[in-house]
Amino acid sequence: MAPDNRDDATASGTETRPLASLLPSAGRIAAADLRDFCTRVLQTLGVPQADADVTAEALVTADLRGIDSHGTAHLRRYVAGLRNGSINARPSMQIQGETPSTALLDGDHGLGFVVGYRGMQLAIEKARQAGTGWVVARRSTHYGAAGYWAGLAVEQGMIGISMTVATAHVAPTFASRAALGTNPIAIGVPAGHEPPFLLDMATSVVPMGRLEVYTRLGKPLPLGWLLDTSGTPITDAAEGFRMAARCDAILMPLGGAGDAGSGYKGYGLGLGVEILTSLLAGYAGEVRPNPHGEPELGQFFGAMRVDAFRPLAEFAAAMDGRLAELKAMPTLPGAERVMVAGQKEWESTQERIAHGIPLHPLVQQELAEIGKQLGLAF
Amino acid sequence: MAPDNRDDATASGTETRPLASLLPSAGRIAAADLRDFCTRVLQTLGVPQADADVTAEALVTADLRGIDSHGTAHLRRYVAGLRNGSINARPSMQIQGETPSTALLDGDHGLGFVVGYRGMQLAIEKARQAGTGWVVARRSTHYGAAGYWAGLAVEQGMIGISMTVATAHVAPTFASRAALGTNPIAIGVPAGHEPPFLLDMATSVVPMGRLEVYTRLGKPLPLGWLLDTSGTPITDAAEGFRMAARCDAILMPLGGAGDAGSGYKGYGLGLGVEILTSLLAGYAGEVRPNPHGEPELGQFFGAMRVDAFRPLAEFAAAMDGRLAELKAMPTLPGAERVMVAGQKEWESTQERIAHGIPLHPLVQQELAEIGKQLGLAF
Repeated sequence: MAPDNRDDATASGTETRPLASLLPSAGRIAAADLRDFCTRVLQTLGVPQADADVTAEALVTADLRGIDSHGTAHLRRYVAGLRNGSINARPSMQIQGETPSTALLDGDHGLGFVVGYRGMQLAIEKARQAGTGWVVARRSTHYGAAGYWAGLAVEQGMIGISMTVATAHVAPTFASRAALGTNPIAIGVPAGHEPPFLLDMATSVVPMGRLEVYTRLGKPLPLGWLLDTSGTPITDAAEGFRMAARCDAILMPLGGAGDAGSGYKGYGLGLGVEILTSLLAGYAGEVRPNPHGEPELGQFFGAMRVDAFRPLAEFAAAMDGRLAELKAMPTLPGAERVMVAGQKEWESTQERIAHGIPLHPLVQQELAEIGKQLGLAF
Repeated sequence: MAPDNRDDATASGTETRPLASLLPSAGRIAAADLRDFCTRVLQTLGVPQADADVTAEALVTADLRGIDSHGTAHLRRYVAGLRNGSINARPSMQIQGETPSTALLDGDHGLGFVVGYRGMQLAIEKARQAGTGWVVARRSTHYGAAGYWAGLAVEQGMIGISMTVATAHVAPTFASRAALGTNPIAIGVPAGHEPPFLLDMATSVVPMGRLEVYTRLGKPLPLGWLLDTSGTPITDAAEGFRMAARCDAILMPLGGAGDAGSGYKGYGLGLGVEILTSLLAGYAGEVRPNPHGEPELGQFFGAMRVDAFRPLAEFAAAMDGRLAELKAMPTLPGAERVMVAGQKEWESTQERIAHGIPLHPLVQQELAEIGKQLGLAF
């Protein structure tokens, strides 16, 4: 495939060559160059090369998939954590307990990406031996997009599941303050020639990042996303984001406020995620900062071998048929098409591999600033 | 506990004694008597005693929990299936493949309750050995409320998960016809002195049964539950239920139609359930009838030993603290209280153990008719 080859070729670029000269389209950055820049930044901050590679790969994959809120737009945050010591550049991760199909992994406050990679690899190894593998990680930090980790299992012909707890911004049904994070669930399932099924969803009606997107677009928030603590809907996106960040506004669970939309389901799923990622990991409930000020997170990684139930090729063919059938369904008037989870991100990936990643100007500016501080060309 | 003892005492009543004399409150039926009646009905139709007991227990537990749509109100359906042979009274269930933590179970068109019991017991046994157990059942039939099966694992100090595929009534986001079942997810988690966390939710905004409830109540359907195939909301509950039953109306996924409520999440979860219960079980997609006309279903049963990750007593204490904390949260103006998943059903159980089960007059009539046909007193 030409785009992949081009990616590989640009990955060999020297560290000092300005990336702008390699952009496949005006204002865009090639994935390999962005990956290379992230790796160098992390290595400069003391992260071992293998861990820096794993982290850069996860960040740039989010950018390729169009999940711009979970890619290199967050690099600044990880850089700050590594610099002030709230993220451990060289964690000593340990398995604190295991059974044939489970493990409890201590992340030693390492980069969530490094903990996530180890957690999912461990789940995959367990699944090879025992049919399934389930790893709960404690003392982790932010691990980017949950779907990335589920996707690692998919590459091995397995069903992948990942979840993470997050800082509280979501109110339980009928509560007037936040108590749950947006606690996402990701499920990845291999197919054959179709792109894999890959669901990656906050258990809140929208993630916090969506408020920022609406702020940038200057659009009012739909009713039912965000309330103030007296229950009045907030529609001003910029003001709403600021209020939510300081816990003066509450994000609604999937299904919305009250009974009509069955918001108790989103609340229940969010609490379920907290239990599997946090209570099971040794915590008592809401996310607290680690001793250095970074939110201390629990995460969950699952891998199920498809061929424990059904031959993989047969299953992949059935998935292909089913996904194609859904995508070919007739639409409601005014709707363009029926999609399946992961399709939009797969299409974005194809487009961005071919034409580069359109980083937001603010993100470009941040990355350039990081490069300048560390003496690295961006 | 007095209510439990009273239940045990009434369970020894002879088969011919009319139950009305034992009712704890006017118009209500004691759980033990209802259980006994169901067992006798099933045995009369050729179901072995142990299987009849398991089925009756699951049905009456649903009635106790207030999930009236999934209890003895469905007995007529199972009776019809057993009589016409579309449900196999004496299935020869077989494990068709297994690993240390997984099994594929063939249900041989048995009662879904019998398949469900075997499936969850198998998952629990696997979990004892391997930390977790995951069983996919094929050639099963309707198994009642998903939450019941998750609850069986909770009784063993494990986290329980169950899901089932269902006949298509739910439209994928933007599609003009149904392609997915209401495909419920249940998650049960043990606590200490608090009732267990027990989430049991259709992945549609509401289950089909809710349309029947609104019909009985004479209430209009909230906007966003049900659309006709041109996308117009249907608010007449009775007409809506009839239209949905013949696939002329489409139930919305959790999150509703379109983008604003993130309906793609409910759609994604519903498809995820279909994959785990149906594609993994050997099927190609939508539910089809078995050779005898009963929908042929796949189901999923998972059990995770809490103590594979953390000592059970310590975990249960953390759960108690967290659940109590959520229940004590301040509410939005006009809201009564904050609840947790399973609490309402637990409260219903306490009340109905003490005062009996208030069966709907139509259900009482149906049960009396079944009794009459089989020569059993109700």
